[in-house]
Amino acid sequence: MKIALCQLNYHIGNFKQNREKIIACIERAKAQGAQLAVFSELSVCGYYPIDLLERKEFLNWTRESVDEIAAACNGIAAVIGAPTINESLKGKKLHNSALFLNKGRVEHIAHKTLLPTYDIFDEYRHFEPNKTFSVFEFEGERVALTVCEDLWDDQPTNNSFGKSKLYITSPLEELSKQNPDLVINISASPFSYNQEGARKAIMLKNAGEYGVPIVYVNQVGAQTELIFDGGSMMIDRKGTVLHEMAYFAEDFKIIDTQQTGQQQLQASKSSIEKIHDALVLGIRDYFSKTGFKTATLGLSGGIDSAVVCALAVRALGAQNVRVLLMPSKYSSDHSVADAEALAKNLGIRADLINIQKIVDEYDKALSGIFEGLPPDVTEENIQARTRGTLLMALSNKFGNILLNTSNKSECAVGYGTLYGDMNGGLAVIGDVYKTDVFKLARFINSEKEIIPENTIVKPPSAELRPDQKDSDSLPEYDVLDQILFRYIEMNLAPDDIIAEGFETETVRRAVRLVNMNEYKRFQAPPILRVSSKAFGFGRRMPLVAKYEG
Amino acid sequence: MKIALCQLNYHIGNFKQNREKIIACIERAKAQGAQLAVFSELSVCGYYPIDLLERKEFLNWTRESVDEIAAACNGIAAVIGAPTINESLKGKKLHNSALFLNKGRVEHIAHKTLLPTYDIFDEYRHFEPNKTFSVFEFEGERVALTVCEDLWDDQPTNNSFGKSKLYITSPLEELSKQNPDLVINISASPFSYNQEGARKAIMLKNAGEYGVPIVYVNQVGAQTELIFDGGSMMIDRKGTVLHEMAYFAEDFKIIDTQQTGQQQLQASKSSIEKIHDALVLGIRDYFSKTGFKTATLGLSGGIDSAVVCALAVRALGAQNVRVLLMPSKYSSDHSVADAEALAKNLGIRADLINIQKIVDEYDKALSGIFEGLPPDVTEENIQARTRGTLLMALSNKFGNILLNTSNKSECAVGYGTLYGDMNGGLAVIGDVYKTDVFKLARFINSEKEIIPENTIVKPPSAELRPDQKDSDSLPEYDVLDQILFRYIEMNLAPDDIIAEGFETETVRRAVRLVNMNEYKRFQAPPILRVSSKAFGFGRRMPLVAKYEG
Repeated sequence: MKIALCQLNYHIGNFKQNREKIIACIERAKAQGAQLAVFSELSVCGYYPIDLLERKEFLNWTRESVDEIAAACNGIAAVIGAPTINESLKGKKLHNSALFLNKGRVEHIAHKTLLPTYDIFDEYRHFEPNKTFSVFEFEGERVALTVCEDLWDDQPTNNSFGKSKLYITSPLEELSKQNPDLVINISASPFSYNQEGARKAIMLKNAGEYGVPIVYVNQVGAQTELIFDGGSMMIDRKGTVLHEMAYFAEDFKIIDTQQTGQQQLQASKSSIEKIHDALVLGIRDYFSKTGFKTATLGLSGGIDSAVVCALAVRALGAQNVRVLLMPSKYSSDHSVADAEALAKNLGIRADLINIQKIVDEYDKALSGIFEGLPPDVTEENIQARTRGTLLMALSNKFGNILLNTSNKSECAVGYGTLYGDMNGGLAVIGDVYKTDVFKLARFINSEKEIIPENTIVKPPSAELRPDQKDSDSLPEYDVLDQILFRYIEMNLAPDDIIAEGFETETVRRAVRLVNMNEYKRFQAPPILRVSSKAFGFGRRMPLVAKYEG
Repeated sequence: MKIALCQLNYHIGNFKQNREKIIACIERAKAQGAQLAVFSELSVCGYYPIDLLERKEFLNWTRESVDEIAAACNGIAAVIGAPTINESLKGKKLHNSALFLNKGRVEHIAHKTLLPTYDIFDEYRHFEPNKTFSVFEFEGERVALTVCEDLWDDQPTNNSFGKSKLYITSPLEELSKQNPDLVINISASPFSYNQEGARKAIMLKNAGEYGVPIVYVNQVGAQTELIFDGGSMMIDRKGTVLHEMAYFAEDFKIIDTQQTGQQQLQASKSSIEKIHDALVLGIRDYFSKTGFKTATLGLSGGIDSAVVCALAVRALGAQNVRVLLMPSKYSSDHSVADAEALAKNLGIRADLINIQKIVDEYDKALSGIFEGLPPDVTEENIQARTRGTLLMALSNKFGNILLNTSNKSECAVGYGTLYGDMNGGLAVIGDVYKTDVFKLARFINSEKEIIPENTIVKPPSAELRPDQKDSDSLPEYDVLDQILFRYIEMNLAPDDIIAEGFETETVRRAVRLVNMNEYKRFQAPPILRVSSKAFGFGRRMPLVAKYEG
């Protein structure tokens, strides 16, 4: 069978645009002689609409779109993803379904069996799981239709409770009893740099174990925090990847399920390059899908804002990024010089406002109430909040989205000012540890120097008091980041981290800082997710809790 | 059997404090001749720890606490709630369990069957549902042990998809086959003013339908946004409430399951009084559980800040609340006068800072970049952000938590400045529509005038430009709030709201404003929840989505 793998970038709730894209691909596939066009999970409405799924009008628009797409399926069939109504009188209202469209109508439906409800996933909130299994026949082949997680039944759970499987049912085991010739899996599987091998391994294992070829079509594109990387595949019955599609870009390819032979794979990339590509896509889609064109941010001369600025220029173009330099009396000379050099290298507009007079006016206004009290973090925060207010003024006046430049190490330990440098519509590197921000800077500079060398090599400083260094209040980042990775991504207990040889007091302090700053992260902007455990929707912690660590 | 109903206020993760409270109650119950002491759902760790449940050390601390509490059960038994390890090799790691402790050990465990995963509930994220049912015998009575939602199997789903039941299993139907003499239900059921009748109705229906008495013990106290109201009950086999415990306060009572006769009920209260009591508890617990004592807020002379201030004084005491008055050149004379009158009535410290010089300094700093551009919302936001910065300076310097004063109508339509008046550690009335804020003000004034009459009767205004009124940019609140309630709480489609007789353009505009302001609410403080659908954790909407309304 000739199948068109259609790897598209959908916009949640934009039924018209999604439908037009899908129908255009169906027509292209038909023109090129394909018998079937396959799209990704919830392609009709985009993945994941969360509680829009509870709205009746949203389901009506979905059904209308499905009908229109079905009408386009004549002389070619298609598999699309959509929520469908659970017709039983009991249970959740919806199913997460793969629909086989042929001859103008829905000929077969397979509901998703395994509903991920961990990390960023919330599917059991809206969907009733499937409990019956059937294959359907098309063009002489018996096809098993599955949705994403359905192939992930032996995913090990992510910590040490002695569980071997997260799920009780194995959909492919059930379906294999009906001797399918082909498995189709439609997915919406987000990128994370430290689980990138898992997906391919799962597909290969399934194909090999059940001796059946797999066509896997993934969503591509960013939906606020989540970045879907594409990388759709066709795997033969021996468990060899024959076709691998583009990462972080739309793609279209017609494959033949009978074909064997030459592998067509993507060039392999380093983790840092993938993170780079993911963040560029994340910025670009946040803007295009909210209808904004231009970004602003503050350039401090430091590495975080430099990296975010370079990524923004790659995503939006130099003409759509403008920056503000906002020195105070504590700013070093190189801050302004480094920021100006970067702006020049990138060819973007930079304005400069010295914040000192505004800060002085705050100090004067508060002098009565603060009389006799020594300066402390209060005065540092006023500087950060003055900068935040100026940036938002630019954002308001010119319709720019303010990009937040906090990195993951800072977010973790609360090294940032709420309503100050934590401002922004989107946190670009909030899931990238400081040590990886340096690697990103080097990667950005790999062809020519964009980020000034001095920005990369000088010791990190917030410059909120004389001669301040990050290392005055925090452990060195190369140690801190290792501890944070173990506590956050690996979910290790502090005692287990200490047992690895990290200093007891440093581990306790890092863990204490992470826990006491939940309230700050609660009000942080959405963070582009590139790891297996980002701050935000995938990590839900009570604000008012005691952690006896 | 004589049973002590122990309605306590737990602190999430504070194992030591929770354990000491539980053991003290067991000893008190024993001293007073009870045979069994019953506590609420997840009482050992507090409801709901969310992803702390994924941490191994958290489960270790839970197990140690359970062991200590079991050791206290000699000469008396107890039912407590705790997460327990799912011993099966497949499925989620944990169960949400009710543990029957007797003779120093766990004698019986019942796992929760129905795991709420809607609105603010996330239980399927962490727990594997129970699938087997058994009663146990104690003191000659056959006891069916259930956890919260287990009695809510015929809860109708909250919208119009033609579903009759949210769940497939009925735990009480299963357990009733074993002829229990008594049903014990341990709960953590949060308050909402517009579903207050549902809980009692469900309990009465179950008792009557299965002809068995029910002992229902609920958690009390606030956990950040969620306010648990207590109201534990004992219902006889005929479906009559014999005992009803305190609302919004800890309580302890020994009942006899054999007893019939006189009903002991709580005095009934109006919805507004319940909301008032809920908010006072919500503030008090947020402070006591985070270890803070003092609050600050800005008083504008308007009704929102006045109501929040009065509630804060009731929760924390006048000596622990201090306010800032921050007039600008657009402030009317009555703003300061009304705010000062309120502060005097409440006996709290009030300071005044005129923001004009700071605002002028911002304008000067931006004059070059903004040259030739007309004033717009940018300049209004600078005023709001200057106030937000001053309030945070007080918060930082004196260790006060800033209370946010936005109401639900404003949160809904985005009538507020991010990083300005949207600042705060806790949004006190963010789930109270403006029309209900007026009712709260009247309730607060019911014994004597605390909130100045002028604050209540003058037309609402943000005073960010000359002669501004809320009604310049928004529909009148009595219409707006009705539309918002239908769209948010009732989840009605816009067309259905219009069909009720509301003006088409007003409905479309309100819905558009709600949808386009998801990004603002994403960064809002936690909001004390008093309705069936509050902004925050219980309403999860994609930021980057199109709504074709």
